[in-house]
Amino acid sequence: MNHQELRAVTWTAAAEDGRPALSLIDQTALPHTLERLAVTTVDGLVDAIVSLVVRGAPAIGAAGGYGVALAMAQAEREGWDRARLDAEVARIRAARPTAVNLMVCVDRVAPRIGEGLPAVLAEADAIVREDLAANRAMGAYGADWLLKRVAAAGERPLRILTHCNTGALATAGWGTALGIIRELHARGRIETVYADETRPLLQGARLTAWELAQEGIPHYVQADGAAAGTILRGEVDAAIVGADRVAANGDTANKVGTVGIALACAYAGIPFVVAAPTTTVDLTTPSGDAIHIELRGEDEVVEWAGIRTAPAASRGHNPAFDVTPGSLVTALVTEQGVREVAAGELPVVGPSGA
Amino acid sequence: MNHQELRAVTWTAAAEDGRPALSLIDQTALPHTLERLAVTTVDGLVDAIVSLVVRGAPAIGAAGGYGVALAMAQAEREGWDRARLDAEVARIRAARPTAVNLMVCVDRVAPRIGEGLPAVLAEADAIVREDLAANRAMGAYGADWLLKRVAAAGERPLRILTHCNTGALATAGWGTALGIIRELHARGRIETVYADETRPLLQGARLTAWELAQEGIPHYVQADGAAAGTILRGEVDAAIVGADRVAANGDTANKVGTVGIALACAYAGIPFVVAAPTTTVDLTTPSGDAIHIELRGEDEVVEWAGIRTAPAASRGHNPAFDVTPGSLVTALVTEQGVREVAAGELPVVGPSGA
Repeated sequence: MNHQELRAVTWTAAAEDGRPALSLIDQTALPHTLERLAVTTVDGLVDAIVSLVVRGAPAIGAAGGYGVALAMAQAEREGWDRARLDAEVARIRAARPTAVNLMVCVDRVAPRIGEGLPAVLAEADAIVREDLAANRAMGAYGADWLLKRVAAAGERPLRILTHCNTGALATAGWGTALGIIRELHARGRIETVYADETRPLLQGARLTAWELAQEGIPHYVQADGAAAGTILRGEVDAAIVGADRVAANGDTANKVGTVGIALACAYAGIPFVVAAPTTTVDLTTPSGDAIHIELRGEDEVVEWAGIRTAPAASRGHNPAFDVTPGSLVTALVTEQGVREVAAGELPVVGPSGA
Repeated sequence: MNHQELRAVTWTAAAEDGRPALSLIDQTALPHTLERLAVTTVDGLVDAIVSLVVRGAPAIGAAGGYGVALAMAQAEREGWDRARLDAEVARIRAARPTAVNLMVCVDRVAPRIGEGLPAVLAEADAIVREDLAANRAMGAYGADWLLKRVAAAGERPLRILTHCNTGALATAGWGTALGIIRELHARGRIETVYADETRPLLQGARLTAWELAQEGIPHYVQADGAAAGTILRGEVDAAIVGADRVAANGDTANKVGTVGIALACAYAGIPFVVAAPTTTVDLTTPSGDAIHIELRGEDEVVEWAGIRTAPAASRGHNPAFDVTPGSLVTALVTEQGVREVAAGELPVVGPSGA
């Protein structure tokens, strides 16, 4: 298996039953089994997004793009009229309200429905191709910058901390923050990676660790609470994370637990690096105060594999994201290059300002 | 059940088999079942400490004090000479390395071995009595200070964040940080408590939430990674935690995850309060650099209930504690009063400086 070719989301013109299908790596089954799920209906796709079979904002976006094609194929089979087709596409678009990429990608592909399936698939393919290219570019820019910035490292390999999963599974391929780690590893400059387990859903322990293990990159899984202490004891050269949304002032929404890492990096004087494509930068959001933080179900916190861990009387508090102030972001790596946010530069030229 | 009387560690002159026993609440079985374990041997006690049947620095200290009596009873039954007895007592003393209380309590009780079992038991009883009194005093001092300090609260009840378990289960009774929360609740001044779940062993979700539920104190359990974001969003008035060891300069070793909370409190400008008896202050330790951080088994991080969560190839990194710089500790509450550490006061008059 060529791991650089790992693709969480692929289009299959004819699956086993002859229907076109969206093939998804079932991320809920990792790290134990690598299974692909062939989705052939809008219901199946919405279920897959809601249940986190596919997750990671760019991967969900790719699935949304192909989802338009999937809906067209189902419309053809079942004789839907255009109004029904549009309603089904809207249902895909709304499957996870906070993933802006999902809406952006559906909105990019859906206008081509009138041109037929090949045009729709070409647009969805373009989304995947562009995301892959952006990730490769981020990997190179981020690795260059870090190797220059962590000058004290000399020629020694680096110790990198990361949070959640930002790898091939979360994107069209290669990864954002994990893409930089892959690039550093390809250059022989990774000593070890500290992968925060990322409670409550353990994307770090299950998915990031799986990708690192597949690549043979040395790594430790640690509790999220261990991150700040590991950083303050001098065991980490830099932290690299992804982003779900970057506001105009550099405030960055990312998986819950991120801002604590940023605070520890600032205290320890090591770089805190955010890697995200420019599509993640939202210049219409002036600051983090305007970013709505999704509260997910309480059971994710107070149960484990269906078994209650806290007393029955306990409530769970389950914000899925937090906001890191832009002043704590040492550098934002995009496919356009590296912006030193904490040094006062504007974060990046985004979609509405390019 | 009178919850103020909850005792995790009690001495039983004659257990079911007629032997003297140390009765411990099995904290690994909570919150589902409240069971007591009767320990009658040094092996059994060391196992109970290592496996966290009994945990929390003051509770381990109490168990260590009674452990000397337990070793004497076993010596009598099994005909140990004094050298063997001393070696077994030393084994109890070394069962866990980070909390100073275990060593302090064993060292306080062991010199009375020559006076016989009643004298040893009297000394161990005194440790428990003093710890309870200290906790009650800390509760009152801490509540007074917080209500004065969080002046913006006016008469409204407070939103307090805590980490790990510092309640009746972790001490001889009532609790340290959780004792302050109990006292605030008794005064009608708790709106809600955010209890970090405290990975990897979930002392927050299992034990703190259980104690809070028993008392009817409103609370949320949250992932440890959520703490910093909850604080930065302004949802918390103060954080209160316990300590396993406080160095002469105020550096504080406590359950892994604590220093991230301290950093968030400093950033948000809210009080970060440490509650610990003076026996926890170790003036022979000049700073946190000299505190040995226990690395526990990898399986605690990469498994859940015996099921592997991370890939087989992944290593686990499992520091049990971290060190919060004294400059981040707003106040240290002991049974003697409140010292404002971050304001530059010496942390406290400890055992070797009183």
